[in-house]
Amino acid sequence: MGQESTHIVSSFEQELERLRAMMVRMGGLVERQTSQAVAAVVDHDENAAAAAPELDPQVDVLERDVEAMVIRILALRSPVAGDLREVVSALKITGDMERIGDCAASVARRSLRTELLGTRVSLSGLRGMGRLVQDNLRRAIDAMTQRDPEKAYEVWQSDTAVDELYTAMFRELVTYMMEDPRNIGPCTHLLFIAKNLERIGDHATNIAERVYYTVTGDILPVVRPRGGFSGTAATPDDAVREELAKNGVGGDDAP
Amino acid sequence: MGQESTHIVSSFEQELERLRAMMVRMGGLVERQTSQAVAAVVDHDENAAAAAPELDPQVDVLERDVEAMVIRILALRSPVAGDLREVVSALKITGDMERIGDCAASVARRSLRTELLGTRVSLSGLRGMGRLVQDNLRRAIDAMTQRDPEKAYEVWQSDTAVDELYTAMFRELVTYMMEDPRNIGPCTHLLFIAKNLERIGDHATNIAERVYYTVTGDILPVVRPRGGFSGTAATPDDAVREELAKNGVGGDDAP
Repeated sequence: MGQESTHIVSSFEQELERLRAMMVRMGGLVERQTSQAVAAVVDHDENAAAAAPELDPQVDVLERDVEAMVIRILALRSPVAGDLREVVSALKITGDMERIGDCAASVARRSLRTELLGTRVSLSGLRGMGRLVQDNLRRAIDAMTQRDPEKAYEVWQSDTAVDELYTAMFRELVTYMMEDPRNIGPCTHLLFIAKNLERIGDHATNIAERVYYTVTGDILPVVRPRGGFSGTAATPDDAVREELAKNGVGGDDAP
Repeated sequence: MGQESTHIVSSFEQELERLRAMMVRMGGLVERQTSQAVAAVVDHDENAAAAAPELDPQVDVLERDVEAMVIRILALRSPVAGDLREVVSALKITGDMERIGDCAASVARRSLRTELLGTRVSLSGLRGMGRLVQDNLRRAIDAMTQRDPEKAYEVWQSDTAVDELYTAMFRELVTYMMEDPRNIGPCTHLLFIAKNLERIGDHATNIAERVYYTVTGDILPVVRPRGGFSGTAATPDDAVREELAKNGVGGDDAP
């Protein structure tokens, strides 16, 4: 290998490393936003509520920086095979990370709504869901950082649990609203908070799918394991659902 | 220009045209899904409700086909400048289109919920919002198809109206719930339907931003015109909001 091509290869490697470092930094930021969002809601932590949306501009800048680096690498280095897959996947993954940041910021902002202060609605379901979503996100970002397809596969499989918790939350919140109209204001916001947490879980799964594909070159099935229930699927909790439906309390469909 | 390079250029042009054709087809599909979703809700059109989710697999396949073509073009043609921007933007735009399809399918599925049948809750606000979102989406896809930055800029500006309609819808629905607990079931689903329509509007705006950037090379400002209100912004409807807040009826924050 001549001196010139060694130089080119090492520049390429350096750029790829810088790209990876930006992705890891972006992942760390949206993880932090998600933790702040959960703390804002379940611990009424006002500092966390203010902090999560403040990180948004940094996330947006990183998304643009990643794209600029991807374009630079594509224009100057013409990567192929696995390298090309990694560079293209970076664009998709940052799209998911940016939306995680948006969802987290939205949850954090909602936590400050006056309707939520002093509500007697139980937040324990949301606490459990928040914990699980944070955990899935952390593992998805770890899988990305370590380029570990097995870890990615595990995250991909565990989205079902998030969906199940969301479905349970949805019913619980509608029941609270029916019990007492004073719960309608807070529960409406909690419904959207739960939905945003579920979406963060979805995006974490998307990231995991991408990592798996980037490292292995294989695509996971289009239909991934899903919890909750669709309008037509027969599930073990059909009886419960029918019971609730009689009282106008239905389940929920993603997204 | 030698015969070989002519051959290469024309193959590249052909591939770019095929890429564009796939994008246009995908745009047409998600437009159709959105129309079906709106008809499903506001006209109780059960055929439309069933049809929208059925298009999902086609949309997903097109998203993957676009990515495969992008990777092919990048690996074999090493595009630069505007061509490279277009190819990279295709990945981002299909991401938004795929999510539009998801949102539309979700709206269509929700329209079949038994809670929504026979509800006396007015759907006129949703009808207006549906019309506006469909219009914005159509114009965004047109701007993409025609690579027209002026059209793209117009769409980008008109997202505010969608956000305003959404905010009004949100309040209206919460008010209905407070008036009569029998409205809680249907209105909860209508809240998410309105939210999904608003998100379709957001994705249409993202597509418009992308088209503008792809054609001109310029990036539109990070903060785009927004309707509705955030938790802290002072807006003309502050008085109305305070009035509603007293009764536990707040506004809403995207996403």
